Amino acid sequence: MTDNVLVEVLRGAVVESRHSGAVAVVDADGRVVLALGDIERAVYPRSAVKALQALPLIESGAADRYGLTDAELALACASHGGEPDHVATAKAMLKRAGLDASALRCGPHPPMHQPSAVALYRAGVTPSALHNNCSGKHAGFLCLACALDADPRGYLEPTQPAQLAVKAAIESISGAVLTDDRRGIDGCSAPTWAVPLKHLALAFARFGTGHSLAPERAKAAARLRAACAAHPWHVAGSGRFCTEVMRLLGARVFVKVGAEGVYCGALPGQGLGLAVKCDDGGGRAAEVVTAAMIVRFAALSDRDRAALEHFVRPVLHNWNGLTVGALRPTELLLA
Amino acid sequence: MTDNVLVEVLRGAVVESRHSGAVAVVDADGRVVLALGDIERAVYPRSAVKALQALPLIESGAADRYGLTDAELALACASHGGEPDHVATAKAMLKRAGLDASALRCGPHPPMHQPSAVALYRAGVTPSALHNNCSGKHAGFLCLACALDADPRGYLEPTQPAQLAVKAAIESISGAVLTDDRRGIDGCSAPTWAVPLKHLALAFARFGTGHSLAPERAKAAARLRAACAAHPWHVAGSGRFCTEVMRLLGARVFVKVGAEGVYCGALPGQGLGLAVKCDDGGGRAAEVVTAAMIVRFAALSDRDRAALEHFVRPVLHNWNGLTVGALRPTELLLA
Repeated sequence: MTDNVLVEVLRGAVVESRHSGAVAVVDADGRVVLALGDIERAVYPRSAVKALQALPLIESGAADRYGLTDAELALACASHGGEPDHVATAKAMLKRAGLDASALRCGPHPPMHQPSAVALYRAGVTPSALHNNCSGKHAGFLCLACALDADPRGYLEPTQPAQLAVKAAIESISGAVLTDDRRGIDGCSAPTWAVPLKHLALAFARFGTGHSLAPERAKAAARLRAACAAHPWHVAGSGRFCTEVMRLLGARVFVKVGAEGVYCGALPGQGLGLAVKCDDGGGRAAEVVTAAMIVRFAALSDRDRAALEHFVRPVLHNWNGLTVGALRPTELLLA
Repeated sequence: MTDNVLVEVLRGAVVESRHSGAVAVVDADGRVVLALGDIERAVYPRSAVKALQALPLIESGAADRYGLTDAELALACASHGGEPDHVATAKAMLKRAGLDASALRCGPHPPMHQPSAVALYRAGVTPSALHNNCSGKHAGFLCLACALDADPRGYLEPTQPAQLAVKAAIESISGAVLTDDRRGIDGCSAPTWAVPLKHLALAFARFGTGHSLAPERAKAAARLRAACAAHPWHVAGSGRFCTEVMRLLGARVFVKVGAEGVYCGALPGQGLGLAVKCDDGGGRAAEVVTAAMIVRFAALSDRDRAALEHFVRPVLHNWNGLTVGALRPTELLLA
């Protein structure tokens, strides 16, 4: 690892903390447009590839067979906040395949959306697997397993049809070989494979353009992008980065967060894919980097740039609401 | 900044994230026993110096005048979890000075101790400034202000008697000059000054031994250490690192967390002070580093070493309770 400080955290006039990381911006032919840090290093994309994991849901015919709506497809690509409508949407997806929440193997956690968590506690409700930020992805996996006539109870097993299809989709679109020695278990118990950052960016350049994809895959990717652009709230939730960016920019940008400081994204108009990894796993820094990359490469209007400024240089407030500092991208990120 | 990776985060067999940082271990004469990273760099100690901020509370006579108990003195040094007894202790401290929660200027936040936060929500109670992890420190500041016959409403002002006394104590014990260009506002609105890591370690070597301190200061430091050793739960709370370590090792180790990846500590038996800063502000890594330093320098029995192992190499579980990875210290930290 080299010393690529991408984001500084200021308190008053002093740099209090700093985040190193790597960024790959790649076109659909694999040409590297920008490389910061080690983009050959394999990183777990975690939730940042949910949209790629959802490709077989469409390609298998499962989405049509169960009549999934665009909002439901967006939720399959989501790390949602567990807000009431997210939960209801996940439930509806399961119902379409004749299942209920007991089929989910993602584990329970309180809604990431704090007011929704507080509302649950106030109502005396215990958080369930439906509140897990991955419940939409898992509902999608379950629809896929059912459409493949596989036992839904094994839908997370790396050797069962659903995960084999997911793995094949990621391998093919990224051009990376996914090996067992680079397989981990995700927070939601799904398998996750480490992929070189360059290949993650390539995957999203292809996802965003359809370039070099089989026609069915290009169609599936376009359908997922359109679903997320039409329903950005379902991809994350109230006040969240992915939602706010796609609400502002619509189909011009696809962007998705992953745990441990990962972001992946596509700029279809520019034919580019983007992958970001903050070395230390810091999500706050990965968000700044991603916002800076969108501003740099997405050919935005001054107005759109201004609307993203609070993501590029977020101001930090304390418990009394006083301004105490800010995050800022370093020169490495600025064109 | 150099590339000092101190902690790696594993998922399966792959290093998913890594944390760089700096460590200073110094004796009470200022001799550097261990230096990793840049220990001359000024870092905000944040809550890690609460015990130093509490020195004037004793030296001014305020602690005796208001009859503060040892548990209350420990809470003055604490980043507590907002558990019910923490809140009750902070309230009692304020009452001793004829004040109530309305005097606190730290701002409200939900208890850091999750079950206590959930219990509050279930009861329909809104978190107050008493639940702020710094409420004990602020109650101590208020006792100090009152004992100095200062207007308690100005107790956070850098130019008022209470904060002038706090600043003078930190300057004197650390040997560092605290300048306005290195002053920030802490999460609780108290002033915080950036101090070179080496000087933070020196301050805690002196705090732990009394060496080279005026007799009154050495006595105050010993009283605070004894209070924290006797009431480690009041310094943090259920399941927390500082509490668990001091519960295990008693007066042999003083240790205190600060925000943004800081720890300070003292090993009185070895005459050493310790200061840790994780470059990216990651608390999980700072905890591993601090645990590794205690194991390395505190001359522990095999049994005590074994009891700290889960802090040195914490295992990571996911929402289903599956083991998904671990944190581990790098070779740099191992003797």
